[in-house]
Amino acid sequence: MLNYSVIGTGAIGGFYGGRLAHAGRAVRFLLHSDYEYVKQYGLRVDSCDGDFVLPQVEAYNNVEDMPQSDVILVALKSVNNHDLLPKLLRPLIHEDTTVVLIQNGIGLEEDLQSVFPGLHIVAGLAFICCAKEGPGHIHHQDFGPINLGNYSCPDGRFKTLLSDMQDAGLKAAQVPYLEARWKKAVWNMPFNGMTVALNTSTDKLLNTPATRQLIYDQMLEVIGAAQALGVSTLTSEFADQMMTTTDRMVPYSPSMKLDFDNGRPMEIEYLYSRPIAEARKAGFEMPKLAMLEAELRFIGESDIWA
Amino acid sequence: MLNYSVIGTGAIGGFYGGRLAHAGRAVRFLLHSDYEYVKQYGLRVDSCDGDFVLPQVEAYNNVEDMPQSDVILVALKSVNNHDLLPKLLRPLIHEDTTVVLIQNGIGLEEDLQSVFPGLHIVAGLAFICCAKEGPGHIHHQDFGPINLGNYSCPDGRFKTLLSDMQDAGLKAAQVPYLEARWKKAVWNMPFNGMTVALNTSTDKLLNTPATRQLIYDQMLEVIGAAQALGVSTLTSEFADQMMTTTDRMVPYSPSMKLDFDNGRPMEIEYLYSRPIAEARKAGFEMPKLAMLEAELRFIGESDIWA
Repeated sequence: MLNYSVIGTGAIGGFYGGRLAHAGRAVRFLLHSDYEYVKQYGLRVDSCDGDFVLPQVEAYNNVEDMPQSDVILVALKSVNNHDLLPKLLRPLIHEDTTVVLIQNGIGLEEDLQSVFPGLHIVAGLAFICCAKEGPGHIHHQDFGPINLGNYSCPDGRFKTLLSDMQDAGLKAAQVPYLEARWKKAVWNMPFNGMTVALNTSTDKLLNTPATRQLIYDQMLEVIGAAQALGVSTLTSEFADQMMTTTDRMVPYSPSMKLDFDNGRPMEIEYLYSRPIAEARKAGFEMPKLAMLEAELRFIGESDIWA
Repeated sequence: MLNYSVIGTGAIGGFYGGRLAHAGRAVRFLLHSDYEYVKQYGLRVDSCDGDFVLPQVEAYNNVEDMPQSDVILVALKSVNNHDLLPKLLRPLIHEDTTVVLIQNGIGLEEDLQSVFPGLHIVAGLAFICCAKEGPGHIHHQDFGPINLGNYSCPDGRFKTLLSDMQDAGLKAAQVPYLEARWKKAVWNMPFNGMTVALNTSTDKLLNTPATRQLIYDQMLEVIGAAQALGVSTLTSEFADQMMTTTDRMVPYSPSMKLDFDNGRPMEIEYLYSRPIAEARKAGFEMPKLAMLEAELRFIGESDIWA
C-alpha cells in the first residue's frame, strides 16, 4: 500500500490527507504553527459528508525527521513553490515518489519538473469549500471533488493514487492535465482577483449587472486562452455552467480574498502572470485579466486598505 | 460685444468666467449654494497666472431671473446633462445663443443638440488644475489652456468667442471637434477611473510598474478608438506625451476621484459608457476601459469604502 505525506496541513491538506488517514492509509502530516496541538490532539474534520476525528496522527514539524514517501500531497500556497517547496520535498523523494500539487494556477508542474527532472508529478484541482477553523480543526463546508491531471506519473501509479482516493470516499476523477488546470482557472481567475480588487464577495459581483458581465467576459478570456493552448474541450458553455453554480453558492470569499484580508501574499504569479504569459505566447491576449493582474500587483504592494 | 453666462460656478466656471469678467465682459454667474456669499463678496481667483478679485459680479440663484445670453459656459458635472441642464438653458437661449460645454467625455454635444436642434454648440476642453477652495474662492494651480471644438456654431461667432477668450488672457485654441474630445479622453479615461478603482493618486499609478503599463495600455485603447472613429491625427506618440506630462505633475487627484471622495455621483456615462459604445459601433473594442467602467459602476453603487 502507498504511504502518503502532506506538506501544508491547512484546510486542503488537512481534509484530503485526513480522509486518507481515516480510511487507514499511512499519512504523515508536516505542520508548522499547529504542530504542538496536532501532535497532542490529532485532527478534527467537520464535513458535510460526515464528521470525523483522528485522535492521533503522524505529525512532524521538520521534513528532516520524516521518512521518504510514495505520494506527497502539496497543499501550500504557490508563492512558496520556487524557494521553499524544493527544500521541503528533497528529503522526502525516493525513486518512485509522486508529488500531487493540490494548488491553483498554470505552469506549476512544469516549474517543479525542471527542479526535479525524474519526479512523477500530478496536478490536483480541488473543487471544495473548506476552511481551517483552528489548529487541527478543518471545516469542510461544501463540494469536495478533486480532479487529478497526470503530468508525469507512470500510468499504473496514477491509477493506484486515484483508487486510493476514491476508496477513502473522495470524489477523485482523472482529467486530462491541461484541461484540469485551465478548467479550474475559469472560475479562479475572475473570482479570486475581483473579490480582492473590489473588496467584495462572489454574490455581490454576480448581483451587480456590470460586474456580472465583466466576470463572464473574464471567464471567456480564460476559455479562449485554453483553446489557444489546445484544450478544445473547454467551451463557453462551461462559463454558463460556472455562473449558474456560483449563483447557487452562499456568498463566498475565495482563497485569494482570504489571503489578502489576512495579510498573506497573493498567488498572483501562477494564477495570473503565468497563464497570461502562456496565452500570449500562443498569440492570445487576455486584456481584462491582465488588467486585473496589474491591479492586484498594485494592491499587493500598497497599504490602500490600511 | 458678446455677453456671457456661467452655469455652474465651481472651479471651472468660476475661473474661465472670472477671467472674462476681469477683462471687462458682461458675465452673469448662476450660483447655487454659494449665491449669498458671491452676491455679497464677489469672486476671488488665486491664479498661477496672477491673482485677481472681482469685488462685485452679476450673481443669480435662479435662471428665470437671468436675461437671455449670447454665450453660455456650462461647467456642471455631466451627470446633470439629461435632466437638469435643459431646464437651466431653456430660459437663457435666444436665436443666436452659443453654448460651450466645458465638460469631459464623448457625445455631450450630440445629446444636447437633439434637445435643442437649432442651438449653436461648442465643446470646451479645459486642461487645468483648479479647485474651489471655498465659496467664491477659486484656486488656479497649474496649466490653464482651453481647447474649443466647434460642433455646430457659425464660424464667425466661433471666431469671436475664441478671440474674446484670448483677449481675456486665456490660452484658448481651436481644435477639430472630435479630436478635441478624444484627445482629452486619452488622459481622462485611464486616470479618473483608476485613481478611484485603486483609491490612489496619479503618481502612485505611474510609479508602480504594473499599473504604469496598464495606464499606457488604456491610453492606447482610447487612441485606437479615436482612430477608428476617424481622428487620424491622434497617435501613440500622444500617449507617450501624456505619460511624460503626468510624470512631471504633482501627485494629483482627478475630478472623478474628488467626486467619489466627496460622495458626488461619478461621470461614468459620458466618460466611459458613451465612448466605449461609440467605439464598439465602429468595430473597436476597449476591453480594459470597459472593465474599468464595470468596476466604477460597482463602486458607485456600493459602500465598500464606508
